[in-house]
Amino acid sequence: MSIDVTVQVLKDNVGKNIMIKLKGDKVIRGILTKFDQHMNLVLSDAAEYKAGDQTKLGNILLKGDNIIIISPQE
Amino acid sequence: MSIDVTVQVLKDNVGKNIMIKLKGDKVIRGILTKFDQHMNLVLSDAAEYKAGDQTKLGNILLKGDNIIIISPQE
Amino acid sequence: MSIDVTVQVLKDNVGKNIMIKLKGDKVIRGILTKFDQHMNLVLSDAAEYKAGDQTKLGNILLKGDNIIIISPQE
Amino acid sequence: MSIDVTVQVLKDNVGKNIMIKLKGDKVIRGILTKFDQHMNLVLSDAAEYKAGDQTKLGNILLKGDNIIIISPQE
Amino acid sequence: MSIDVTVQVLKDNVGKNIMIKLKGDKVIRGILTKFDQHMNLVLSDAAEYKAGDQTKLGNILLKGDNIIIISPQE
Amino acid sequence: MSIDVTVQVLKDNVGKNIMIKLKGDKVIRGILTKFDQHMNLVLSDAAEYKAGDQTKLGNILLKGDNIIIISPQE
Amino acid sequence: MSIDVTVQVLKDNVGKNIMIKLKGDKVIRGILTKFDQHMNLVLSDAAEYKAGDQTKLGNILLKGDNIIIISPQE
Repeated sequence: MSIDVTVQVLKDNVGKNIMIKLKGDKVIRGILTKFDQHMNLVLSDAAEYKAGDQTKLGNILLKGDNIIIISPQE
Repeated sequence: MSIDVTVQVLKDNVGKNIMIKLKGDKVIRGILTKFDQHMNLVLSDAAEYKAGDQTKLGNILLKGDNIIIISPQE
Repeated sequence: MSIDVTVQVLKDNVGKNIMIKLKGDKVIRGILTKFDQHMNLVLSDAAEYKAGDQTKLGNILLKGDNIIIISPQE
Repeated sequence: MSIDVTVQVLKDNVGKNIMIKLKGDKVIRGILTKFDQHMNLVLSDAAEYKAGDQTKLGNILLKGDNIIIISPQE
Repeated sequence: MSIDVTVQVLKDNVGKNIMIKLKGDKVIRGILTKFDQHMNLVLSDAAEYKAGDQTKLGNILLKGDNIIIISPQE
Repeated sequence: MSIDVTVQVLKDNVGKNIMIKLKGDKVIRGILTKFDQHMNLVLSDAAEYKAGDQTKLGNILLKGDNIIIISPQE
Repeated sequence: MSIDVTVQVLKDNVGKNIMIKLKGDKVIRGILTKFDQHMNLVLSDAAEYKAGDQTKLGNILLKGDNIIIISPQE
């Protein structure tokens, strides 16, 4: 069994572009700058995508408890 | 791994204008005056935005457990 | 970081008129008479507002876990 | 700050008629006979009210975690 | 204040017919055979009632966290 | 009061056919092969039933926190 | 009673193709590469299936608390 799977993955992606799927079919993209063990994320250059529309958000703090999927974007 | 990501971000924004996205597609804007480690926020000059309408709320206490995203507003 | 933001705000408003937004778009107004650290509130002269209608409730005990926003009413 | 606000209010209402608003727009009325610190209530002569209809329930045990508001009925 | 209100009520109803209201407007009736302190119930001769239809379920284990109301059926 | 009601019932049904009702009106049937104290279940020969349709799932791990009712199938 | 049923099943499926059903009728398929005791999963070659459509996701971190069912895919 691997411990702290979420921390490992997030550590590897600091400074990189990630996509986050939230409850309620929201999708956020941005550059991961900080995170903690509750999957709270700080993103820069973030934008929200919903039903084809993009809304620029800039720097955001995203609460971990609404996250369903995190995916690194090559 | 960074500890207390939410506290760091909130500390940097006391006295500044922030935008908060809540569950149920509510958006609140206001000046952050106080906060605690549960992301409970005290805002002054707050207003709620929903489907294009703005409702002035004045001073409010906002419970942290409904927050999805916090974004500083330059 | 400020500790016990909710207690501070509630303490300052005992005996005063407050507005509470609950999950499910309910709004309650009343005079705050008592509270505890879970944001459970006792209100007198309370009324519920929904879609323009007002329902008088008198004295109520309001459970803290349904609260989204508390706002003092000048 | 007052401790145990819910216990105080419930203690004062044993043997009396109370109205309870539950999540999902259910309203229950009945005579409070027992309670515990989780707001679990035992009611006698209870009835449920929904959209103008009344359903007699008799003696019931009502779980505290669905309660939004409790109001004594003079 | 009474402690363990739910245990008292359930103890008094072992071997008796009870009605349970669950979240999502489901109603279950059956004979209570066992229970624990989480309100997990074992029922025999159980049936589900929804919108006028009855579905026989026989022996069931019912998880306590979906229960809203328990009512003894004379 | 009986302790560990869920463990008792699950233990009696290892190797037997059970029906599980999940939140969201999903019904799963299968042979119980393993379980733990959180009601996490391992089923073989499982299938999902929804609105009259059956989908074969084979071996599955079913998380306990979505379960409403477990019923042994004679 | 078996302890750690979820860990056993996940351990047996590292490097293999699994199907995950999430709340909100989402289905994810991918190769399990890592996991932890909260059922947080790391998948490679993942894709999302919804109402007949497939969306490629590549490498993803999937939070355990949205999972309903995990099924190994032979």
